[in-house]
Amino acid sequence: MPEKKPVNHIRLTSHPDSDSQATRLVWGEAEPLRRGPVVATLTETAHRNVIGTHAGSYAIYRALAVAAGSLPQDHRADLTNTSPAEQIGPFPSWKDPERIVSMDPWGAVAPQVFRAYVDQGVDIRPTIAITRAHMNMPELRDAITAGRLIPDGHHLTANGDVKVTKAAVEPVWHLPGIAKRFGLTESALRRGLFEHTGGMFPELITRPDLHVFLPPIGGLTIYFFGKMETISDPNVPLAVRVHDECNGSDVFGSDICTCRPYLAHGVEECVRTAQAGGAGVIVYSRKEGRALGEVTKFLVYNARKRQEGGDSAATYFHRTECVAGVQDMRFQELMPDALHWMGITRIHRFVSMSDMKYNAITRSGIEIVERVPIPDGLVPADAQVEMEAKKAAGYYTPGKVANTQELQQVKGRDLDA
Amino acid sequence: MPEKKPVNHIRLTSHPDSDSQATRLVWGEAEPLRRGPVVATLTETAHRNVIGTHAGSYAIYRALAVAAGSLPQDHRADLTNTSPAEQIGPFPSWKDPERIVSMDPWGAVAPQVFRAYVDQGVDIRPTIAITRAHMNMPELRDAITAGRLIPDGHHLTANGDVKVTKAAVEPVWHLPGIAKRFGLTESALRRGLFEHTGGMFPELITRPDLHVFLPPIGGLTIYFFGKMETISDPNVPLAVRVHDECNGSDVFGSDICTCRPYLAHGVEECVRTAQAGGAGVIVYSRKEGRALGEVTKFLVYNARKRQEGGDSAATYFHRTECVAGVQDMRFQELMPDALHWMGITRIHRFVSMSDMKYNAITRSGIEIVERVPIPDGLVPADAQVEMEAKKAAGYYTPGKVANTQELQQVKGRDLDA
Repeated sequence: MPEKKPVNHIRLTSHPDSDSQATRLVWGEAEPLRRGPVVATLTETAHRNVIGTHAGSYAIYRALAVAAGSLPQDHRADLTNTSPAEQIGPFPSWKDPERIVSMDPWGAVAPQVFRAYVDQGVDIRPTIAITRAHMNMPELRDAITAGRLIPDGHHLTANGDVKVTKAAVEPVWHLPGIAKRFGLTESALRRGLFEHTGGMFPELITRPDLHVFLPPIGGLTIYFFGKMETISDPNVPLAVRVHDECNGSDVFGSDICTCRPYLAHGVEECVRTAQAGGAGVIVYSRKEGRALGEVTKFLVYNARKRQEGGDSAATYFHRTECVAGVQDMRFQELMPDALHWMGITRIHRFVSMSDMKYNAITRSGIEIVERVPIPDGLVPADAQVEMEAKKAAGYYTPGKVANTQELQQVKGRDLDA
Repeated sequence: MPEKKPVNHIRLTSHPDSDSQATRLVWGEAEPLRRGPVVATLTETAHRNVIGTHAGSYAIYRALAVAAGSLPQDHRADLTNTSPAEQIGPFPSWKDPERIVSMDPWGAVAPQVFRAYVDQGVDIRPTIAITRAHMNMPELRDAITAGRLIPDGHHLTANGDVKVTKAAVEPVWHLPGIAKRFGLTESALRRGLFEHTGGMFPELITRPDLHVFLPPIGGLTIYFFGKMETISDPNVPLAVRVHDECNGSDVFGSDICTCRPYLAHGVEECVRTAQAGGAGVIVYSRKEGRALGEVTKFLVYNARKRQEGGDSAATYFHRTECVAGVQDMRFQELMPDALHWMGITRIHRFVSMSDMKYNAITRSGIEIVERVPIPDGLVPADAQVEMEAKKAAGYYTPGKVANTQELQQVKGRDLDA
């Protein structure tokens, strides 16, 4: 055991220090060693150059593990054999400080690229991990039975197994870039994040010299189908679905929305595009209930199904606004970052009807050739309320959009039915 | 618009105040009005009696919405028609301050029970929401086809629809009780949580008068099958599965583990028990990758599949420990709280092989009559590594446990296969 000096003084917040050994970090620098690593370790705090720490909201469990004595506070990860299963990038987008602001483009290869720092004792952890997997969704077996997918023994086997590469991504926010996306000054953003979380991380205020924040929120997972190397090639077909978590549907198949059916359809499109020599990408973001959380979501369900006249497409968005104050908190403005990280410049088949997602992606400079709506047969009966309300509000559809009177006729089930 | 005084001074941390208007909160008091409400609002900070705020990690998105100007900072939820779809409790466990320490037992009915406070202008939000849903999992249709489940038109329809009640639960931690579960002093716990998150919430240190913390982590979802009113009756059959999130399997069907197959089997057991006149409960906790997060999980997958000799049951736990420093951070010690909230005293069929879950539940005073292992046919080939390693480490099995030599023979797929 290394000798430790007992420390009884608690620093409630740190302040910029002229003797700071904080590791240099220049967001958007093209050359990684000039950019510098994200250092969020708690084992050698002098090296830190960010606010917050690793693992998103799971940092709390880590703190509990240290407090409970089950994890030594100076544990450093042994990263033997953990390096990415596939190489992604670097792409030109990585050196634009405003193109990627909510994840670290060098996050997957940090321990390798910043080896010189590691050799000097800096504790560098990856914020992205890339592995391989075989997945099997019952819906793909159904697609095979229905003849929509044909097993090829490579991308898709007869029993529905699909080979994928997948990446888990922790949130890493460059605050100046996040502020710019929302048209705010950096200080207004920092103050808002501090005050409206009930005072989380005073360093948001006291450390204006630290511009990177690792927020305690869920990150995202990216699934890759087909050839990784063609994803950034605008001339090779690419199918993409950008999906926001909906546990009730994604896992349990709740029939009030189209989340899992549309996700499964996205996977089907990705497999088909991979089989045709292209590639597919699913981006899965932890933004339950439009990032309002599941408690708010269930409150809204009750309010929708109990309102006078019953659940109706005409009042679909209004009920969320009553409870939450807004219709949506997902901030799709940040979502294209993951696509730019992969070097995507053109999406041939975009498996989403969301105008918010479409606008965010195309405004960020990525071309979308075709939008793929969910097939009518995959929309559960009770989800017609959501579907018609969204189409009337601007979601893409090649079909008819209901008028106000028609929206009132689109009704969902009662709460007790 | 109410007139607002401009406030430019930022309080970095609050301190106990002799003039404090903080709302009284006495954890474990039997009478709700003596217990007092959890007040985590940011609209009238003088009323607050907790550290942190609502919505777990989604509080960050709410702060972003306020900072970006899309949500007024004084928005109060309009809770019309949002009250619970089913009544749960109160049960004797609610008035034991040490029995339930990680959620607020009064959280679902807070706006109703604490109406007197609401009438005086206190902004009280529920930390639990209870609604109804119809769910449809493809595996249940398979179970019908295989004759394992028989539709009855009520609990289970011919197309596999299942009627459920479900509850979303936000984390609400009573710090003295959490500390006691882990054998810590409250101040050691508070200091650990503050320091090992990189300095989140200085109030953990400066406000020893506030004992309740709403941590920015994911909560849990509870699915109820069958008669709600029998769940707390020890003489009526009850099936329970306590499931920890595994996005790769639960949503995408990754074959490296048994998570979704076992979850689907748990739902099947719940439906069967409901059909027999009893009830079923699934508790789904947001503890991805043993609460280590998905980045760590994928790093471990790479390390397992690339190690010398290949992925093996003999080294299954060791690889996680190398990367994370521990095998597991889920802290099952807190998990039984949800069961006590429902008034459960006896579980007839416990659909889990985990000794950690079994021990945590039985030590908390709940009887488990029978443990239900996952049927062999549901274990994917690549998941045999996990299954055999866990059985050898103490997981329940009515079958054979592999010895050291046999564990070395249980091999998983290579990373590139």
